[in-house]
Amino acid sequence: MPLGSELSASAVAHPNIAFIKYWGDRDSALHLPANGSISMNLGDLATRTRVVFDSSMRSDELFLNGVLQSGAAVERVRRFLDIVRSLAGQFICARVESENNFPAGAGLASSASAYAALALAASHALGLRLSEIELSRLARRGSGSACRSVPGGFVEWQAGSNDLDCYAFCIAPPKHWALVDCIVLLDTAQKEVGSLQGHVLAATSPLQAARLADAPRRLELCRQAVLSRDFTSLAEIIELDSHLMHAVMMTSAPSLLYWQPATLQVMKSVIGWRRDGLPVCYTIDAGANVHVICEADNAAQVRKLLGALEGVVDVLCSSVGGAVRLVE
Amino acid sequence: MPLGSELSASAVAHPNIAFIKYWGDRDSALHLPANGSISMNLGDLATRTRVVFDSSMRSDELFLNGVLQSGAAVERVRRFLDIVRSLAGQFICARVESENNFPAGAGLASSASAYAALALAASHALGLRLSEIELSRLARRGSGSACRSVPGGFVEWQAGSNDLDCYAFCIAPPKHWALVDCIVLLDTAQKEVGSLQGHVLAATSPLQAARLADAPRRLELCRQAVLSRDFTSLAEIIELDSHLMHAVMMTSAPSLLYWQPATLQVMKSVIGWRRDGLPVCYTIDAGANVHVICEADNAAQVRKLLGALEGVVDVLCSSVGGAVRLVE
Repeated sequence: MPLGSELSASAVAHPNIAFIKYWGDRDSALHLPANGSISMNLGDLATRTRVVFDSSMRSDELFLNGVLQSGAAVERVRRFLDIVRSLAGQFICARVESENNFPAGAGLASSASAYAALALAASHALGLRLSEIELSRLARRGSGSACRSVPGGFVEWQAGSNDLDCYAFCIAPPKHWALVDCIVLLDTAQKEVGSLQGHVLAATSPLQAARLADAPRRLELCRQAVLSRDFTSLAEIIELDSHLMHAVMMTSAPSLLYWQPATLQVMKSVIGWRRDGLPVCYTIDAGANVHVICEADNAAQVRKLLGALEGVVDVLCSSVGGAVRLVE
Repeated sequence: MPLGSELSASAVAHPNIAFIKYWGDRDSALHLPANGSISMNLGDLATRTRVVFDSSMRSDELFLNGVLQSGAAVERVRRFLDIVRSLAGQFICARVESENNFPAGAGLASSASAYAALALAASHALGLRLSEIELSRLARRGSGSACRSVPGGFVEWQAGSNDLDCYAFCIAPPKHWALVDCIVLLDTAQKEVGSLQGHVLAATSPLQAARLADAPRRLELCRQAVLSRDFTSLAEIIELDSHLMHAVMMTSAPSLLYWQPATLQVMKSVIGWRRDGLPVCYTIDAGANVHVICEADNAAQVRKLLGALEGVVDVLCSSVGGAVRLVE
């Protein structure tokens, strides 16, 4: 490739919300997870990433929402691009421009959509034409849960036995079930411990082994609930799974207490509404915000109820999203 | 014993706060616990119980704080008195008058002090002269954690292998360490699920077996922290143990979420104060209230800090208490 020439591509990916959570790695370098997981893509939230490989550049550059980044964020992207460059056999630096239409760092899994979009844009720009499975495996190297943002709709990430069989696949397309995730943004500071560090702490909890041992049972219950559109069963298993992950977090050393008082207030409100007959449930990632899941018919009512709770700053609602895709 | 004659005795016992928690039974009829536990008696809180066996009565009567009780509370006392009557070989009905100097049903383990006092008063009234071990075993039959309110000071309840070796004993007397429990009463309704029913649910959590398997390690750490008056180690192990019990509670079926938003606010405040250098830690029983533990020198400051938090109705402070005892 002559000096000064450019290779570029752009891709859009959606973040995902896990119904059965990923917490802890078997292999933290390869992001081989300690257990399989199931998630739903969030179609109304998106990361759009443009990658330009430019043979005149001397180092990689990363712009997030228009702002040039430095330090750990760039280093992480550089290491990921090294994997793509090795696959393509082309060792050219890149400029990465990434934009989210949702707030970063608030437990909304922005790294999942970021690395899914980057995997597709970077690999395509360098001439690679990866299958969905190959792309999912590649995205996983950037951020574990990014592998789940590669396929569309409802997705399962199989733990697999090694790098080759550790990827995510669609278990039901977006139109299978009109679920909505009402993301409750709370009046809190940024989370104190990022999920990358948190995964390392999982093994220090006396409960992690029991959580993992029970995972196949929960995956089966969740898969069946999704496939049969059984909201009651879904509610039961995803709240249990969320509690299990937070149980491991709060009993790790040091203890990770991601919940805030307002988090617990939303949880208890949701439980109360469900007791009163409204089909609604919650799940919480590595942060204080609460993901309240309901069917589309009830989303307006749920959003209104949530907005009236104390400490709630905003409610972002999203329907089920599709796969990562190339864009102009 | 001629008709109309009376046999009576009165006893005072203190409730206790567990550092290593009792949650779940091996044998729910005998209250043989799934794991051993360690607690501290609360000397400033007390239950005073007078028992009068009266051969002219046709059924047992129970007065709590002067109010005649009916239903489940009386039935539970009657079954307990049946055990005492069998031991003594005297089958006479009794009037039980019990008074607490602290609010009941607010996660303050009133059944522990109640059955410790009742065990001593009832057995003594019927002429039994039980050893501390025998009395601890007897109190256990009324309420598991009552066995820990029989000895004084810092107490360990060994799980044992059967009814005979399942009792509590003193591991350090009250004067060994001037700890204070600042009990934070929150603005909440009574707890929704009592601990008697909760113990039954423990086995439904996928985490209970792991919590139990790790118990000997925690008991050893806690015992050593108490014996060496090592507050830093005590803080670490009792917060972990409390989190482990609540992890089991919130992952049981149905889920038990005893924490309220204000509970979490107190927890996070305590963690912050400790980070700032104040030796303080917390533990939470089957309720929303928080037990904040500190050394006597810091109790006034801790009480003041707690009283200033939102949602805090009252703070009851107690130093270490002695054994159950007969009174006039």
